[in-house]
Amino acid sequence: MSERGEPVDPRRNNPDSHDEAPVEGAFDSADTRHDEDDRLKPGFVSAVLEAVEEGEAEQARELVSPLHPADIADLLELTPSDQRADVAAALGDLVGAEVLSELNDYVRDDLIGALAPEQVAEFAAELDTDDAVAIIEDMEEDEQQAVLEALDPEDRAAIESALAYPEESAGRLMQRDLVAVPEHMSVGQLIDYLRDNRDLTTDFWEIFVVDEAHRPIGTCQLSWVLTCPRNVAVSDLMKREQTLIPVDMDQEEVALRFQKYALISAAVVDGSGRLVGMITVDDVVHIISEEAGEDILRLSGAGEGDINEPVLDSYRTRVRWLLTNLLTALVASTIIGLFEGTIERMVALATLMPIVAGVGGNAGSQTMAVTVRALATNQITASNTRRTIVREMRVALLNGGTVAVVLGIGVSLVFLNPALGAVIASAMLVNIVTAGLAGVSVPLAFDRLNLDPAVASSIFVTMITDSMGFLAFLGLATAAGLTG
Amino acid sequence: MSERGEPVDPRRNNPDSHDEAPVEGAFDSADTRHDEDDRLKPGFVSAVLEAVEEGEAEQARELVSPLHPADIADLLELTPSDQRADVAAALGDLVGAEVLSELNDYVRDDLIGALAPEQVAEFAAELDTDDAVAIIEDMEEDEQQAVLEALDPEDRAAIESALAYPEESAGRLMQRDLVAVPEHMSVGQLIDYLRDNRDLTTDFWEIFVVDEAHRPIGTCQLSWVLTCPRNVAVSDLMKREQTLIPVDMDQEEVALRFQKYALISAAVVDGSGRLVGMITVDDVVHIISEEAGEDILRLSGAGEGDINEPVLDSYRTRVRWLLTNLLTALVASTIIGLFEGTIERMVALATLMPIVAGVGGNAGSQTMAVTVRALATNQITASNTRRTIVREMRVALLNGGTVAVVLGIGVSLVFLNPALGAVIASAMLVNIVTAGLAGVSVPLAFDRLNLDPAVASSIFVTMITDSMGFLAFLGLATAAGLTG
Repeated sequence: MSERGEPVDPRRNNPDSHDEAPVEGAFDSADTRHDEDDRLKPGFVSAVLEAVEEGEAEQARELVSPLHPADIADLLELTPSDQRADVAAALGDLVGAEVLSELNDYVRDDLIGALAPEQVAEFAAELDTDDAVAIIEDMEEDEQQAVLEALDPEDRAAIESALAYPEESAGRLMQRDLVAVPEHMSVGQLIDYLRDNRDLTTDFWEIFVVDEAHRPIGTCQLSWVLTCPRNVAVSDLMKREQTLIPVDMDQEEVALRFQKYALISAAVVDGSGRLVGMITVDDVVHIISEEAGEDILRLSGAGEGDINEPVLDSYRTRVRWLLTNLLTALVASTIIGLFEGTIERMVALATLMPIVAGVGGNAGSQTMAVTVRALATNQITASNTRRTIVREMRVALLNGGTVAVVLGIGVSLVFLNPALGAVIASAMLVNIVTAGLAGVSVPLAFDRLNLDPAVASSIFVTMITDSMGFLAFLGLATAAGLTG
Repeated sequence: MSERGEPVDPRRNNPDSHDEAPVEGAFDSADTRHDEDDRLKPGFVSAVLEAVEEGEAEQARELVSPLHPADIADLLELTPSDQRADVAAALGDLVGAEVLSELNDYVRDDLIGALAPEQVAEFAAELDTDDAVAIIEDMEEDEQQAVLEALDPEDRAAIESALAYPEESAGRLMQRDLVAVPEHMSVGQLIDYLRDNRDLTTDFWEIFVVDEAHRPIGTCQLSWVLTCPRNVAVSDLMKREQTLIPVDMDQEEVALRFQKYALISAAVVDGSGRLVGMITVDDVVHIISEEAGEDILRLSGAGEGDINEPVLDSYRTRVRWLLTNLLTALVASTIIGLFEGTIERMVALATLMPIVAGVGGNAGSQTMAVTVRALATNQITASNTRRTIVREMRVALLNGGTVAVVLGIGVSLVFLNPALGAVIASAMLVNIVTAGLAGVSVPLAFDRLNLDPAVASSIFVTMITDSMGFLAFLGLATAAGLTG
């Protein structure tokens, strides 16, 4: 997509890409392709699909060629799955390596499944190691092997060594191409070195200074290099404090570290402290978003929750959760069963009991959502656990008190039965306080046990609020002798 | 925190900061202050608090001084609110402008409330415009005015013009300090210009090339500048395609745009296309995380959901939601009331009915979570709305069928009543399919109406799944003549 002049372009991933296209697309304010939210307009998408259906590949290419690779990826995602291969074929080399690396995982797997290993290898060779790994890591073992064999030895070695690190670790995320220089260099020597080695990496924002054992000892922002005289030593310019990323660190922690220390790039080191790669912020931005967004899916048991996931995969993930929910509902049901006699004598109780359980469940969800978010953002530690619980109990008492009074008065008036009103008010208060306690302490307990609080908590909190709601209401009604 | 040599450090926000501190803290692998998740260890926090309580300010400062400003901010957040002012006072200038800008909003407001306007102005003057604005924007009108009056005219003008833009807009987020050069410059001239103007901005990663009217016409990554000979013209080096950010764009859209196009920095332009500022990725990273994480809080009605929010604020937000939930529960309750006669004749129905509603509610939440996430990440447009609904209906049919069979067989066996089993199975199927339809179409409808699907959907979907669950189960039981 670059329009930078040919002769001086130091690095260019894909020499066949549509670099000479007119300047348009996502960058044009009078844009016929994007809506105000930067999404592709439906009219544009259907124009492309129609062109492809009618065999007008050239027309489709003309429409698509001004788009940024991220937008071409969007276009393929918006294309119905049975037409994707046709659209990709019609667009030809517009669907390049960069587009593939921007694609939703499911859509990419779909498309790549239709390609020969040699073609996949060609794409992989054009990309940074981390993007190439992202494309290859989800393939079947034998297909992966075929792609690796089609790669040239150097690329193959880089990708294989990345694949040797655990999934979702810094080792998979990092790129091996980076600029590392010895500390005795001056700014002038550094600039000369960079000018002489234009093809050393793709994009870089910082330079790493290393000792003889290739251990990072400092970092230089490029802006510092550019604003300093040539005779200054790199070791005087660099910042010695660095946030180093261990190569086996989980990507979620990497993302939190980038966020916390506002990093643009960071050195990745192996067990002996040697510099083995670099992670740049553009590689973690989508992880930050994914990790922050996935809790909502996990809490409801929707798994990956991607609209491109195959229906059967979504079914498998979700039905497991619903069947578990069925079991927990049985607990609540059993509790109601204990009070069949009471209900028989006063059917109004059956009418009212879902209110207590329902509102309690909602109060539990609120507290649970707050706690899960605070845990995910590292806001809760042992230092403030007690304080957080106390805080949530205060909110729960205020909430419980308010809802209890409103509901109690309402029921007293509607049923002309102040005793029933008092019973439901007390049950509501008990249940909202229980819900608050469960909503904050269950996720905290799971976190302490190193289990994902978002996945495991919801089942327990729901079971507790459902059961307690029925138990408190029907139990109090029986104890109060409401039904004689 | 920088250890870069004094004489060549081109920019240094806070000359009084603890730059000469030993290299330790977050960057040390044998770390006594951080746990494996990069959070401050409880032992370390209490050591600092004890030192402060015992009046040993010097000891507290010694403990804290090796920390990164982001960690000092964490320390203050982990400190109980009634001790925060004391801790901040004891730490003195260790709590600098950078620490303030890293602090949680509630904690910061708390601390700043105790400061004189002159002190706040001093902090603001040390920061980039965007960080200064973040500190000042939440203050009361009159306090804000006092701080602005204490600023020097230049800083004041910059902050006032930022405050003139709407909250959460690009104008608030951008910094005014940036490097913009005319296109006729050569790389050599650019480097000389940068060396002569070391104090022009804090951190920058790209250079903007502008025309005579100060409209951006291209962007140069610093790495391109550094890898090119001095005689190359900047206009040959720059990338003409740029993602420009309109100054009034909402920060959520800014964040999505940075994510989509993997931007490091972007030019902000006013209505006439003139370059007025720059946004860098470190300023949007926390917005990406916030925006992705807030849907889980909104869906449950927990508002901001921050554990530092004052209890009364949390109460107000949440109780409003619980009272709304009470109203929707009344709808479900009314439906049960219609079948009082049926329940009286067969109390087992009262025992079983929460199962149908509960599991249906869960199925609705799953679909809703998936849809809300897909909408938030711009994955759904008019191009694939129908397809998304069809997909969710397929999953719902599979889920409904499976749960219905399991529940139907179970109930038939336990109650020795195949008719009851058939009734509950049918009700379950109906409710899960209804839940799926509501879970996907309600958020889509709200989005179409330009309402936040995360906030508004949950009430409706819950009401639908609750009511439908009871209606289908009790209605079918009545219709089937189960109770004679």
